[in-house]
Amino acid sequence: MPLPGAPSLGSADPVEPVLDLLGVLAYGELSAFERLAADAALAPTLSDRAALDGLAVTEYSHFCRLRDRLTALGADPDAVMGTFADALEEFHDHTAPSDFLEGLVKAVVGDGIAADFYREVARTPAVDPATRQIVLDALAEGDRTAFATTRVRAAVDADPVLAGRLALWARRLVGEALTQAHRVAAEHPGLTTLLGGVGGTAEVSQMFVRIAEAHARRMTALGLES
Amino acid sequence: MPLPGAPSLGSADPVEPVLDLLGVLAYGELSAFERLAADAALAPTLSDRAALDGLAVTEYSHFCRLRDRLTALGADPDAVMGTFADALEEFHDHTAPSDFLEGLVKAVVGDGIAADFYREVARTPAVDPATRQIVLDALAEGDRTAFATTRVRAAVDADPVLAGRLALWARRLVGEALTQAHRVAAEHPGLTTLLGGVGGTAEVSQMFVRIAEAHARRMTALGLES
Repeated sequence: MPLPGAPSLGSADPVEPVLDLLGVLAYGELSAFERLAADAALAPTLSDRAALDGLAVTEYSHFCRLRDRLTALGADPDAVMGTFADALEEFHDHTAPSDFLEGLVKAVVGDGIAADFYREVARTPAVDPATRQIVLDALAEGDRTAFATTRVRAAVDADPVLAGRLALWARRLVGEALTQAHRVAAEHPGLTTLLGGVGGTAEVSQMFVRIAEAHARRMTALGLES
Repeated sequence: MPLPGAPSLGSADPVEPVLDLLGVLAYGELSAFERLAADAALAPTLSDRAALDGLAVTEYSHFCRLRDRLTALGADPDAVMGTFADALEEFHDHTAPSDFLEGLVKAVVGDGIAADFYREVARTPAVDPATRQIVLDALAEGDRTAFATTRVRAAVDADPVLAGRLALWARRLVGEALTQAHRVAAEHPGLTTLLGGVGGTAEVSQMFVRIAEAHARRMTALGLES
């Protein structure tokens, strides 16, 4: 995939898995952008609609940085990203929100778990420092889901039945995310070799514990039981 | 609409029509953002899809500036924008592109005519200088449709039948735009008083001649007969 003259990643670095990491992130951001912009139609007010559109625009700026990094590494972004299209579109097809609050919970929970996971992967030794920084920058950007969290929290505090429904919805989102993550890992074994660089099985387990804990904190902030 | 303590527009300035101008522009940009993001699904490649999404993101940044100006003038952006929702959504419902090239032509032609028209309105004496600058800035931003023009031109040069179909499509876009412009004018007579500030009927006619000429130039650049 890398063209002649592409920047070296260092002899110890597996090029293919790093490209895969950038590719799945880039496609994820692009599809998140389009899905959030479509979900905005569910918003009850123009302000809410504009706020969800604003979350979408943030995803697009992340997409641009990740795609540009793929290009800088000599890869063809379309080719790398394309191998993740089916799994990521299937995730979205299985998790189309039926109302505005489901859309907000999806933005917070989905974005959060994906960001935690990719942050862990980016920190593995196999990822070159420049790519790591771009991935971490793309994922940092303050608390862009604060608006969504506040809106969900207010609605849930006023309606316990809603809290139950949205908690179930969040669990379904996590289940679908894991299903698609398994599919991505099976289709791209290189990505799992990146995690192998973390260390032993115990360290991988620790990573999943950290991601689960962060998810539980987000659910608490939303006023939902995880 | 303006709250107490809102910045004065000067005693000679009609406040309501200026808010209407900002409101129709802001709603137009927000809906253009969402429609372009949806049209991106028609793109044949990921690069094309990302490029159309990028055009959408530009519209969103314009939306933000126009909405913020409404807020600065003491208006409720949702209330002002909301009065234009039906007419603008009807325009989009009547002009949903059936393929990627129709989407690109719509981006170039629709964006172009709307920008020309609002630029003319913004230059009328009734519009306060700060609002004028924001509107002109929102509409300037280099040639963001260059990508779309290049792609359409290449496709049209290779296929005369396609050129005929897309020229018809562009004419339909113009017709629908005029229909909705009439509706907006009828529902918001204040907006037409802004044009009255241009001068006599002859000057208004001159304005429409300029807009028609600019449209013809865009069609030529697309390789289409206007």
